[in-house]
Amino acid sequence: MTFRTRFRYRFGDIDDAGIAYYPKLLHYFHCAFEDWWSDALGRPYALLMHEDKLGLPAVKLEAEFFAPVRYGDEPWVHLGVLRLGTSSVEFGFWMTKAKEAAPLCRARVLTAAVDMETMKKRKLPEVWREKFEGFLLSEADFPRGR
Amino acid sequence: MTFRTRFRYRFGDIDDAGIAYYPKLLHYFHCAFEDWWSDALGRPYALLMHEDKLGLPAVKLEAEFFAPVRYGDEPWVHLGVLRLGTSSVEFGFWMTKAKEAAPLCRARVLTAAVDMETMKKRKLPEVWREKFEGFLLSEADFPRGR
Amino acid sequence: MTFRTRFRYRFGDIDDAGIAYYPKLLHYFHCAFEDWWSDALGRPYALLMHEDKLGLPAVKLEAEFFAPVRYGDEPWVHLGVLRLGTSSVEFGFWMTKAKEAAPLCRARVLTAAVDMETMKKRKLPEVWREKFEGFLLSEADFPRGR
Amino acid sequence: MTFRTRFRYRFGDIDDAGIAYYPKLLHYFHCAFEDWWSDALGRPYALLMHEDKLGLPAVKLEAEFFAPVRYGDEPWVHLGVLRLGTSSVEFGFWMTKAKEAAPLCRARVLTAAVDMETMKKRKLPEVWREKFEGFLLSEADFPRGR
Repeated sequence: MTFRTRFRYRFGDIDDAGIAYYPKLLHYFHCAFEDWWSDALGRPYALLMHEDKLGLPAVKLEAEFFAPVRYGDEPWVHLGVLRLGTSSVEFGFWMTKAKEAAPLCRARVLTAAVDMETMKKRKLPEVWREKFEGFLLSEADFPRGR
Repeated sequence: MTFRTRFRYRFGDIDDAGIAYYPKLLHYFHCAFEDWWSDALGRPYALLMHEDKLGLPAVKLEAEFFAPVRYGDEPWVHLGVLRLGTSSVEFGFWMTKAKEAAPLCRARVLTAAVDMETMKKRKLPEVWREKFEGFLLSEADFPRGR
Repeated sequence: MTFRTRFRYRFGDIDDAGIAYYPKLLHYFHCAFEDWWSDALGRPYALLMHEDKLGLPAVKLEAEFFAPVRYGDEPWVHLGVLRLGTSSVEFGFWMTKAKEAAPLCRARVLTAAVDMETMKKRKLPEVWREKFEGFLLSEADFPRGR
Repeated sequence: MTFRTRFRYRFGDIDDAGIAYYPKLLHYFHCAFEDWWSDALGRPYALLMHEDKLGLPAVKLEAEFFAPVRYGDEPWVHLGVLRLGTSSVEFGFWMTKAKEAAPLCRARVLTAAVDMETMKKRKLPEVWREKFEGFLLSEADFPRGR
């Protein structure tokens, strides 16, 4: 199972070439990560950080941009879990125009579970590991560009 | 005396109309406020907030946009103090293409001195009031658009 | 009648004081303006600009910030039309935590109808003037802060 | 030879964890790329795109985040050319606190030379290829994290 959420690509998220500024595409991927916590896992990321003192900062990412995203697009962002470690999680994100279309861009984002008070690595709590397993995505299903 | 600092208007700060997205113009004004602390007052705003526990959040602003700003522009932002209260300061900001040119946009931003720990209003410390007086700007000298 | 739309205030839209960076609040107001075109008027603003060659850039704005907005908030943004001129429209925006609550911030934004090819002022088309009339908001109904 | 340019990390470029929002770090890398055109190559990227109709959009990137960047930091961003193809250039960027310090983060960004009118790939002009050669950086000199 993967998670998906829809966005309106915004008027101010454009660059001087008239298309999506790529750091903003990574912002939309982060927004999808936030929506996944709220809508699929039932625990808003703000509460996870502030009350449970658990955070998942990015330590590494790889992104590919296959086709331009423009103002007026209402793209879907999809999220799956590519790899689950003891204290790390690698997410796969991709953006499509329609629900089932070819990806416009994609990114794998490696995150580390950290204690938000010390910012030190910690073990991923079992309760989340189990939930994350429901979103496991094989490399073969992480869609490539044209 | 007014303070001025120069920026490069950035590739990603453009909207789908091909010109500056106006919330970004207010961001550049905030950057000028930060530069004023570092370069004119000799106390970086980060230290003022973190060590002195003093902040100056905006409570009200008025902005006017006279002419478009584009990617490739290297505008000057000017800052003056329009009004100094017991615990409030009103700043005037304006952006020009060349140092002495007509304004492309301007804003007056009313800020309140707050204690960063309680976020309650506090009296503006005398040391800063005196320094701010050096940047007082009369309404007549706050440049209008065409 | 006013228009309202709900947002998730995002993880990356925070400043170093731990609350909403105010230029971002104006960005959320612009997002509400875009949603109004798509959801209430039935003509996405991207098509209005690209196909009908009509745009409504801001020429002046006044904003007031009454209470902090934080990450995890899911605020409503409300939009009404405060004033309709021949070629100008003044919008009122305000943000609330719950649908009916007191405003966290508000802004009036004066826009000018322009031809997107020449960027010159033009008359507001009658078809839009009529639709905009349905969203007229009296000053008395534009909510003030505490 | 590598290029370097200094930034002030800004008040509004922070996330709710109190550190740099990582899409913003990639924005600072892009700003360094823009400064490189203006300051090292003598041709502002805006003119390259608008007059010479040449652009270098990112098609792929890999980023690593080694240590947090905070408000008040005044980091250096360094740029080198990791690989020069017929119509592609791979850049290496890294950010350091002081000029010679260990990297806080780094990214390799693969760009494709495109004609800005057709957005199709084109051969990198010889004049730029030669200039880019002056910034070639070996993998061994692209600094790794701790």
